Amino acid sequence: MVQCMEVLCIGNELLIGKTLNTNAQWLSKRATAVGITVKRVTVVADEVEEIAAAVREALLRKPKFLIVTGGLGPTFDDKTLEGIAKALNRKVEINAKALQMIKERYEAYAREKGVEKVELTQPRIKMATIPEETEPVPNPVGTAPGVRADLEETVLIALPGVPSEMEAIFEETVVPLLKQASAGIAFYEKSMYADKIMESTLAPLISKVMKANPGIYVKSHPRGEEDKPHIKIHFSIKAKDQKKSAKKLEKAIAQLSCLVEKSGGKAFSGAQDRDQV
Amino acid sequence: MVQCMEVLCIGNELLIGKTLNTNAQWLSKRATAVGITVKRVTVVADEVEEIAAAVREALLRKPKFLIVTGGLGPTFDDKTLEGIAKALNRKVEINAKALQMIKERYEAYAREKGVEKVELTQPRIKMATIPEETEPVPNPVGTAPGVRADLEETVLIALPGVPSEMEAIFEETVVPLLKQASAGIAFYEKSMYADKIMESTLAPLISKVMKANPGIYVKSHPRGEEDKPHIKIHFSIKAKDQKKSAKKLEKAIAQLSCLVEKSGGKAFSGAQDRDQV
Repeated sequence: MVQCMEVLCIGNELLIGKTLNTNAQWLSKRATAVGITVKRVTVVADEVEEIAAAVREALLRKPKFLIVTGGLGPTFDDKTLEGIAKALNRKVEINAKALQMIKERYEAYAREKGVEKVELTQPRIKMATIPEETEPVPNPVGTAPGVRADLEETVLIALPGVPSEMEAIFEETVVPLLKQASAGIAFYEKSMYADKIMESTLAPLISKVMKANPGIYVKSHPRGEEDKPHIKIHFSIKAKDQKKSAKKLEKAIAQLSCLVEKSGGKAFSGAQDRDQV
Repeated sequence: MVQCMEVLCIGNELLIGKTLNTNAQWLSKRATAVGITVKRVTVVADEVEEIAAAVREALLRKPKFLIVTGGLGPTFDDKTLEGIAKALNRKVEINAKALQMIKERYEAYAREKGVEKVELTQPRIKMATIPEETEPVPNPVGTAPGVRADLEETVLIALPGVPSEMEAIFEETVVPLLKQASAGIAFYEKSMYADKIMESTLAPLISKVMKANPGIYVKSHPRGEEDKPHIKIHFSIKAKDQKKSAKKLEKAIAQLSCLVEKSGGKAFSGAQDRDQV
């Protein structure tokens, strides 16, 4: 059974177009590679109500995993945990384990710098203030811990928005959970290119190949203009067996290449860009 | 009054992490620059039910504008218009105006190539098959027209996912609507940098500056690690008057720079990256 995930990104900088949402792409790619289906990505602002609404809506759709990124830091507008607490009808509280993680981090920092002590100020304590009945998740490369809530249908995990921190926690804590959930299914993909054929001419050929190759998904991505057609065609399959999957992809590509050439187009095989566990 | 916009991106390629969502950033940046507030970005797959659900949910939040991108092309999995129709409880139908636009496009193509005629096949007619009571929007650089629906609270506009086509239709048709709605308000921004100060130390200083400068939003973006702090600090304001806004931003930056230096940090002024109409 395919397990689903949603991604919720928090950050005004995304909504004013200042920051390109590479986090959503990274998370989607990584989850897909280990056999999880990403169903939706949502981006909202650093506002408690907005975050709470987006979390509530996502939970109603019952994804197996809800990954939230951004807004765990020390500044006043890092409101993600407050928003999550609100969505879950819980309070936030200073979590002893989270506080210990943060304390150790600042102690290490003080030792390193040879300074006396880094005070546990309000903004620092804020990073340990997480929803009741949730677990802090260690951050191997930064200060703010992640947060995990095991809910009825969904495992919610909040990660920092700084890419290096998000990626480190995701690899260490989330990927093992995803792999367990997908039970050995992985995502295999391969691309080909077609020139001198319009996307609208290609469309029925793709439909034909998909019908003949169940389980394989084919999508065309026009790269040129319709008048100077250069189309990338992406083939993918979710399955357990790598060898069989590779064969299936190759067979489908061979079929479509043949149909493209018959229609007067030119088919090229793409670089093998298989992405797997 | 600030007018709101939502962006809905359709495409499996975004959810498997194959494609980086530069469209969402471009739209957010462009709308923000003309004084519109982007409240939410959503990404869903090329599935009628998913699209319909996302459109329905967005309309319930009553944004002034809902910009949908992707899935207007000729292939079987371009299902955006079917999804929108479903959300609006409308049927899709071949729109005479849209069909004319597409026909002219292919006639021009045939003339250019010196071929006899490009047939209006099913996949091509598909691009003219749009929800009832909506208007096709001319696509100055590609084949698939955009689609506009004037709903009770929201103007919904569907654009192709190919960036050049999306951008061209947006500039030609959508930006004038946004400017009219925002009535001269624009977005002004400026950045500074702070080194040798931790984000958690900076946090209360930012709060102080925001309190002293109503209308100005300040956000810190840590670029280094907490131990080797290098923080970009972004100041922004939405207002009508460019000169006054620039002055206000400069005043707030001067205040924060002073507080940073007092706390032992080092403040730098950033390159002036003001973004405006």
